[in-house]
Amino acid sequence: MDTPSFLKRIIRLVIRPDEQARAQRMARHMIDLCHALLSERGEVSGAALARETLIAYHSLPEPALPALFDLLSSEFSPDPIELARACQEYCAQPSTDTLISLFELAEPPRQELFRRLNTAPGGTTTLVGMRALLLRSLQAHPQWKGIDADLEHLFGSWFNRGFLSLQRIDWNTPAIILEKLIKYEAVHEISGWRDLHRRLEDDRRCFAFFHPALPNEPLIFIEVALTKGISDAVQPLLNLDSPVTDPQTADTAIFYSITNCQRGLRGISFGNLLIKQVAQELGREFSKISTFATLSPVPGFRTWLAGIPEELAATAAGRAAAEAFKCLDDPDWFKQKHTAERVQKHLMPLCACYLIHAKNKDEPADSVARFHLGNGARLERLNWLADTSKRGMQRAAGLMVNYQYRLDDVADNHEVYVKEHRVVASTALRKLARECPLSLPDKR
Amino acid sequence: MDTPSFLKRIIRLVIRPDEQARAQRMARHMIDLCHALLSERGEVSGAALARETLIAYHSLPEPALPALFDLLSSEFSPDPIELARACQEYCAQPSTDTLISLFELAEPPRQELFRRLNTAPGGTTTLVGMRALLLRSLQAHPQWKGIDADLEHLFGSWFNRGFLSLQRIDWNTPAIILEKLIKYEAVHEISGWRDLHRRLEDDRRCFAFFHPALPNEPLIFIEVALTKGISDAVQPLLNLDSPVTDPQTADTAIFYSITNCQRGLRGISFGNLLIKQVAQELGREFSKISTFATLSPVPGFRTWLAGIPEELAATAAGRAAAEAFKCLDDPDWFKQKHTAERVQKHLMPLCACYLIHAKNKDEPADSVARFHLGNGARLERLNWLADTSKRGMQRAAGLMVNYQYRLDDVADNHEVYVKEHRVVASTALRKLARECPLSLPDKR
Amino acid sequence: MDTPSFLKRIIRLVIRPDEQARAQRMARHMIDLCHALLSERGEVSGAALARETLIAYHSLPEPALPALFDLLSSEFSPDPIELARACQEYCAQPSTDTLISLFELAEPPRQELFRRLNTAPGGTTTLVGMRALLLRSLQAHPQWKGIDADLEHLFGSWFNRGFLSLQRIDWNTPAIILEKLIKYEAVHEISGWRDLHRRLEDDRRCFAFFHPALPNEPLIFIEVALTKGISDAVQPLLNLDSPVTDPQTADTAIFYSITNCQRGLRGISFGNLLIKQVAQELGREFSKISTFATLSPVPGFRTWLAGIPEELAATAAGRAAAEAFKCLDDPDWFKQKHTAERVQKHLMPLCACYLIHAKNKDEPADSVARFHLGNGARLERLNWLADTSKRGMQRAAGLMVNYQYRLDDVADNHEVYVKEHRVVASTALRKLARECPLSLPDKR
Amino acid sequence: MDTPSFLKRIIRLVIRPDEQARAQRMARHMIDLCHALLSERGEVSGAALARETLIAYHSLPEPALPALFDLLSSEFSPDPIELARACQEYCAQPSTDTLISLFELAEPPRQELFRRLNTAPGGTTTLVGMRALLLRSLQAHPQWKGIDADLEHLFGSWFNRGFLSLQRIDWNTPAIILEKLIKYEAVHEISGWRDLHRRLEDDRRCFAFFHPALPNEPLIFIEVALTKGISDAVQPLLNLDSPVTDPQTADTAIFYSITNCQRGLRGISFGNLLIKQVAQELGREFSKISTFATLSPVPGFRTWLAGIPEELAATAAGRAAAEAFKCLDDPDWFKQKHTAERVQKHLMPLCACYLIHAKNKDEPADSVARFHLGNGARLERLNWLADTSKRGMQRAAGLMVNYQYRLDDVADNHEVYVKEHRVVASTALRKLARECPLSLPDKR
Repeated sequence: MDTPSFLKRIIRLVIRPDEQARAQRMARHMIDLCHALLSERGEVSGAALARETLIAYHSLPEPALPALFDLLSSEFSPDPIELARACQEYCAQPSTDTLISLFELAEPPRQELFRRLNTAPGGTTTLVGMRALLLRSLQAHPQWKGIDADLEHLFGSWFNRGFLSLQRIDWNTPAIILEKLIKYEAVHEISGWRDLHRRLEDDRRCFAFFHPALPNEPLIFIEVALTKGISDAVQPLLNLDSPVTDPQTADTAIFYSITNCQRGLRGISFGNLLIKQVAQELGREFSKISTFATLSPVPGFRTWLAGIPEELAATAAGRAAAEAFKCLDDPDWFKQKHTAERVQKHLMPLCACYLIHAKNKDEPADSVARFHLGNGARLERLNWLADTSKRGMQRAAGLMVNYQYRLDDVADNHEVYVKEHRVVASTALRKLARECPLSLPDKR
Repeated sequence: MDTPSFLKRIIRLVIRPDEQARAQRMARHMIDLCHALLSERGEVSGAALARETLIAYHSLPEPALPALFDLLSSEFSPDPIELARACQEYCAQPSTDTLISLFELAEPPRQELFRRLNTAPGGTTTLVGMRALLLRSLQAHPQWKGIDADLEHLFGSWFNRGFLSLQRIDWNTPAIILEKLIKYEAVHEISGWRDLHRRLEDDRRCFAFFHPALPNEPLIFIEVALTKGISDAVQPLLNLDSPVTDPQTADTAIFYSITNCQRGLRGISFGNLLIKQVAQELGREFSKISTFATLSPVPGFRTWLAGIPEELAATAAGRAAAEAFKCLDDPDWFKQKHTAERVQKHLMPLCACYLIHAKNKDEPADSVARFHLGNGARLERLNWLADTSKRGMQRAAGLMVNYQYRLDDVADNHEVYVKEHRVVASTALRKLARECPLSLPDKR
Repeated sequence: MDTPSFLKRIIRLVIRPDEQARAQRMARHMIDLCHALLSERGEVSGAALARETLIAYHSLPEPALPALFDLLSSEFSPDPIELARACQEYCAQPSTDTLISLFELAEPPRQELFRRLNTAPGGTTTLVGMRALLLRSLQAHPQWKGIDADLEHLFGSWFNRGFLSLQRIDWNTPAIILEKLIKYEAVHEISGWRDLHRRLEDDRRCFAFFHPALPNEPLIFIEVALTKGISDAVQPLLNLDSPVTDPQTADTAIFYSITNCQRGLRGISFGNLLIKQVAQELGREFSKISTFATLSPVPGFRTWLAGIPEELAATAAGRAAAEAFKCLDDPDWFKQKHTAERVQKHLMPLCACYLIHAKNKDEPADSVARFHLGNGARLERLNWLADTSKRGMQRAAGLMVNYQYRLDDVADNHEVYVKEHRVVASTALRKLARECPLSLPDKR
Repeated sequence: MDTPSFLKRIIRLVIRPDEQARAQRMARHMIDLCHALLSERGEVSGAALARETLIAYHSLPEPALPALFDLLSSEFSPDPIELARACQEYCAQPSTDTLISLFELAEPPRQELFRRLNTAPGGTTTLVGMRALLLRSLQAHPQWKGIDADLEHLFGSWFNRGFLSLQRIDWNTPAIILEKLIKYEAVHEISGWRDLHRRLEDDRRCFAFFHPALPNEPLIFIEVALTKGISDAVQPLLNLDSPVTDPQTADTAIFYSITNCQRGLRGISFGNLLIKQVAQELGREFSKISTFATLSPVPGFRTWLAGIPEELAATAAGRAAAEAFKCLDDPDWFKQKHTAERVQKHLMPLCACYLIHAKNKDEPADSVARFHLGNGARLERLNWLADTSKRGMQRAAGLMVNYQYRLDDVADNHEVYVKEHRVVASTALRKLARECPLSLPDKR
């Protein structure tokens, strides 16, 4: 995505007063253009004025950004007096007419501003990029929340699934798109074009969602391996030199990486749909493939584990486990067979317990678990030494998990999850969790 | 656009009670699906449930439609109690948080329902078609206004100009699109494929706006003739047997027909942008073309004329005119040279006066004038016997008018028009209007 | 295909001497350009000179054509002295070297001329069009045979099946291609766009071969009806108002029309491949379709019948038949049930006999039979009153025949046909033929 | 291009007798399929048999190749007796008929075999690959010359320029094509994707010719830099980190690399056309660009120089030059300013002399000079230390040359070159050559 030029320069820590003044002036200029764009004249001059405003935005120096957001926040909100009157009229008589009027006045003029900015070439890209910048600073500047709410509302409408197209990514795809995969991949880094090429061979599949207004920008993409049986380790899937197998012999599709590409689209979810649509697509192409499962990280496991020393100390079994885990700081602990087996014995039940019982409010503590369980998958299997990369060892001592998508059960699972906060897991995993030495209050 | 099957059958006048009950049941069933689609489960089952709901809609018998709209109206509006509370909170403290909350609650759940329906294949087409049906009956059923407001709001966002693509239509265009032009053309009827082919030859141009979700459906299209000088009559342009001229010799582009294709998109205006974008496109392709003008009907002229007998009777000149106009009921009046000249002398000033001075509230009485003047064009020239088709004679006694688009003046003209309701017209036309026998109060 | 302008004008019968001289001069000029194009300079100036030569060709007046062909014939043949020397060298010592040299010298320079003409835009189209003109006059001008041989040789190489693409034609196809179908259709005339549209509905299929150098010109196209059972009459298939059936319920594909579009490609056969490739394509799309058959005219039947009065007179059965056929001159004979039945009884065996036994040298007398039997089809069934159009009645008294393509038997059938001149026919048809009153010498 | 599997294995030096026998059998099998394909049955079974034959070819082990070529050579040549008879008939009476018959019989049946092989998917690719293999061994096996002559004749017809399309290559091009550029680039090696990306930025252009039957295989490609003035050194053009300049400011297009991609198409020249078509394309896009020149290596210079010690020794100036050149074996000689200047003084005139006067028979001794002069370019300027890569220093002591293409002079230059073997060079270069100490016989 295009980013204002300031992001391409090194950010200086100290801003001189004259620079500050210049930045203010430029932000003011851009805001004046925004007002013009919202005026009558803006309506007819249309795309030309929108283009000019976008250019002004892209020329802003970095220090102008907070000023811009402050002005966007303060000058494009509804008129409080008019809106208050509409509120009173609605409360006095809640009719279709008063409601329509209330809704219209409650919509910040910013939304219309953004709709008009969108008419210029590159408008959508710019707005998505603007929200990405906004989100970076939102916690520090809660007063900008209104801008974010407006962008999110518009994006939710514009990026409706009905407007997205699912496209297969392969070696026939233009380089301008492929380089984005290399850049965006968030789960298992792509080391370069050779690595990418291996992930696009005959026994792999890659799909992405695109929006017509962002033709070279994947919104989200998923990487799939076509295998025999459910994979229990990720390194073999990522191995550049692994032989390419005949996809017609596969019975399983392993989703081993899902990446949201556009930070500016946070909260506009596509992942749920993508997995199911890809599963259908693969089912059509390969009649033998009947199992759809992920091979997923357990990103929060070791952090959680580090937070329960007292719980472990409470039982003999827990203490034995804690003793066994001392070796985990040695980066090579898993290479010694004996040590590894000892750790495995204690770690697997704890991880099963973590995935099934550890909660953040009502939801699973693990972010990846939240995503897949929320989509209607079920926890299928825990895999020992499944990701021995540095990151995999640090986050989950090498453990990975399979979430299985049974298309017939997805809606039921989702409903159970949402209504009762119940985690759907395989019998084997439930059994494993019961071996855990902890006595968590919500352990069943 | 797809239309529910009932539109394809003959509408029966009397509906039997059992049919009525069945229609009610089917509308209820469709509404139940809508509720399911808005539920949690709807979120995850996604497109499948949306598809089912669309199928239910398309199977509705005609008598079910009023019931459906009634239910859509009553069951998907905001909760008045919650919304009233949000109103009070906002009025008590108009902050970003209370505003966001108010806006969210003021948005009817119907909008989210429509967004979810849109995720199914054909969703956009169905919703646009549904609004077309709704608009037919809105005057008789003002209680459905809320549904219309929601659809218009969504369409305004979805059909943002930034998402539209301008496409040239020519003989290389797929037949499935070309047949739509024949069907939709609203200004000068296309009599068949041969007529269409003549309008797509080298000395003609046709452009349309398309939306990615409606790939075979033009939203609006414009027909252009590339000519030497500004055309003063439309029959030569429409003549199937006219020789094709070399477009490189043209100095003028005449927009002789603009058609909005989708009744369901009423109020979502593209015409303004289309004319300007086409003018730019043609300017790029043909460096010699510097004049962009329409050849437009004056649809309201004779109706207006029929309404001012007393004003005419007030002056001698007016009475002479009224006397001359008596022949207008003879369909062949214009074929007699002497009669025609007499009519022309009296009619031209009155038509100039009509275009410049006749008002409907603050705006021009003539609908075509409203459109082009609102877009920043100026009234250029009145053309005698310019459209001698039956319809052209009936509506405007054969008169047509050129509106000229000077790209440099368009924004100024528009502003003057909107702010001061001033009609921008050529000196010649103003002079002609001054010869008119009426003394209208707003005559300047 | 583009044709020189003279074809668009009415051909005048008398050419004045000065016109004749001008035509000669223009032909000479074009030939001079051809010589330049073949020279060294032509090699490097390349496409520019080729383009100039094409323009000269397209500006030729009609009377210049014979002069042009004469010059093309005489001035671009091999040098007889050099070629004779190469002949002698080859005969003296038939080696690779003498053969290569002989082949090179035996190739008329015309072939290289045509290859160079082909480098200009529109070259292929022009050359195909030139051969179409040449073929019209070849019988009267046998001295031009060498030009034809060269063009046929080149086209055989250029239009190799490996370079052709099979494309489905439907309502999404550009109008510029669809209008060619209307124009070219040779078997069952297409009466206009509505007729065409019906032939492209869901229960019909149309496929064509295209060459990359002629993107908007089908080389050959085939029309297919998807039916239940083998069709026994063509009027129901052509009926504009017939209801569209669900293609998924079909078990048979009826090829009811095959048209070669380019007269200039005569002798370069694609039909054989087209039928088989379309059968495969349909087999893939519709798993239920297992029967592939034509519904074909019997164009030579009544002409043949008119030529055998004596053979008929030789037997009592023959005389009875001849008596019955007297009614055939009444255009409405088939509408009277009794008459029709009497004709049917006598006519069917004779037609079966005609198809199986009537020969032109070793091959079937009927041209359509020659085509399909040569492709490996078998004669399946004779259909009574299957084509009651004027043309159908005139040519075959309404009879049509199904040729069936069984993909497994096609190669065997073809071989039997080519080697032994044996006609492969169904038992029923053979039996019918045996009822025929004639005692043809080759009747088995 | 696909290559038979044996090329992917390591070639073993000793072939055991049983392997030899197996290879013979497999070659025989493939040849039997070829005979079948040429038979009547082959005509109708068409693509299926051709596909089978291709598969047999691709399964051949390496040792089968010579046997295959021997059989292709001996069993698919014309029948010498029939051909001799046709020779005699032609000599006796050289008419159109006897010529047509002679040409037909002189064409080896191999050509028809190759045309039929081409009907299978991948046929063209296979045949081009087969010729690449053949060319490797042709010198050692002159008896295979007939096969090569047939393939070259066919390719000359199939790859006619009229069938090629010029395509721009940029970052939007599919990766499957881009990786071919990296692989094929023969002039200035592309070190990887980053290098490639720099060569496709805004101030660079890349174009390739494609044939419809080889959609992902460039036949030839050209790399262009858009510059101010004629470049005098190649390293700045290849520098990955050079800033991208605005192409609108360029006045010159430098062709810095031209690569023929398909060895199997040797002798089928496209380069001439490509340069001129690209020059036209760039002239259209950038109205300011008026100079088209290459920056080319002088590949044969140092080899030539090493071969003339006696000529140098013949004059005092020559001896001084020879003395100066002693340092050339030191790879860093050019880094010392004094040494470099001394070498330059002596080397530049000799190189000018080499380019203008050194001959191989009648043509320039330098292969790159032959190509560009033959295309109508002129020798423009010699550039000192223009290619300081290892290869550039080894082949030409760092010298490079600009050949300029003036579109108006190209045809004249070419003609002068072909007819009189005259080298067209700038005044400056001619003057430089006159300073050379040699007295070559053809020095003017």
